[in-house]
Amino acid sequence: ASAQPLYGLIGKMKAVSGQRDALIAAILEGSGSMPGCLSYIVAKDADDVDAIWITEVWDSEASHDASLQLPAVQASITKARDLVASMETGVVTAPVGGVGLKA
Amino acid sequence: ASAQPLYGLIGKMKAVSGQRDALIAAILEGSGSMPGCLSYIVAKDADDVDAIWITEVWDSEASHDASLQLPAVQASITKARDLVASMETGVVTAPVGGVGLKA
Repeated sequence: ASAQPLYGLIGKMKAVSGQRDALIAAILEGSGSMPGCLSYIVAKDADDVDAIWITEVWDSEASHDASLQLPAVQASITKARDLVASMETGVVTAPVGGVGLKA
Repeated sequence: ASAQPLYGLIGKMKAVSGQRDALIAAILEGSGSMPGCLSYIVAKDADDVDAIWITEVWDSEASHDASLQLPAVQASITKARDLVASMETGVVTAPVGGVGLKA
């Protein structure tokens, strides 16, 4: 375990109707190579055809904040902006362990 | 990408007051070696001192269901049961990609 706590986010957003796949594609394009990112998983909500969930684990809040300035992430945000209808749940967590945290 | 969709769960539960760390320990004990589990992350809620979040990705719903019969998971459930005050949010998802899915 590292000395500083991990930083996690669990967020739900709704795509503009019919644009969920395009939104997912835009998000995944930007998230492939983000320093300090230990997990970043995009999922479709099983019950709501317009909703997606993003669950994230970072080695620090600073790494998360810095990722927002990466060119690939900026490009992704620009593409995604018009595809998002609303932001719903947003929770901050302190991940403590498990399976699937990138080394 | 595999032919069959991935199976995801996002759940929140509240520990009996003061028992969050014990609950987390019980859950992590059981989750180290689960076939078909691509990601299983336990996190403390940053705002609620009794709450935890578990975010899971499985290669299929069947793998998830089968995990509940593993001896280590059964032992974990037995330990955790008395430490849980309530189950809160529970969402089923279809994860589609990202960083940190175990190969």
